[in-house]
Amino acid sequence: MLPELNHLFAVSHLSPGQEDFGVLLQTSSFRLEQITSYSAASPPNFWYDQPEHEWVVLVRGSATLQFEPDEMLPLQAGDYLIIPAHQKHRVEQTSEDAVWLAIHFSTASTS
Amino acid sequence: MLPELNHLFAVSHLSPGQEDFGVLLQTSSFRLEQITSYSAASPPNFWYDQPEHEWVVLVRGSATLQFEPDEMLPLQAGDYLIIPAHQKHRVEQTSEDAVWLAIHFSTASTS
Repeated sequence: MLPELNHLFAVSHLSPGQEDFGVLLQTSSFRLEQITSYSAASPPNFWYDQPEHEWVVLVRGSATLQFEPDEMLPLQAGDYLIIPAHQKHRVEQTSEDAVWLAIHFSTASTS
Repeated sequence: MLPELNHLFAVSHLSPGQEDFGVLLQTSSFRLEQITSYSAASPPNFWYDQPEHEWVVLVRGSATLQFEPDEMLPLQAGDYLIIPAHQKHRVEQTSEDAVWLAIHFSTASTS
């Protein structure tokens, strides 16, 4: 039997400025998430402060992440990075077609 | 300090027919792997028979997976699937620019 096929770039019904978060895979030790961003930005002065490490790749589009206090990291499709737990960051901007994959994990890792 | 940025689509030095496997992240519970395939195919009658589950996405290019005995699954960029442990499969063909991400994991999961 063939495995079920899904698609990261399925048409979404977002409006400009919106983001959609979907959990693709969840185990006791990590969570794989898809994020679709349509010209999205975190609110001014909002910072993600996450209890877990995050490995994240921009699969499609372009985007800029901001790290506290004011360091900007521009990203193109294919760029990936690890955001350590509690490293404060926000989304400064994304293109209309931005799609991310993120793995949230808490155990010790070697990259 | 900004996190280190890496790129999935960095230039590789593969020849036609070759594949490259790289571990991007390894923890006690999962392994995240990048696979770059340049018009690659598994040898005839070779089957992957893996002890762990595999979540895999084709990030770029196109490809066809074969599942035992003879079921073909064509993939486009953005397609993802779970290959359960011990489901025998092989790579039938890929485009010149195929790039995959695969998460190998063994714990119970809900997708």
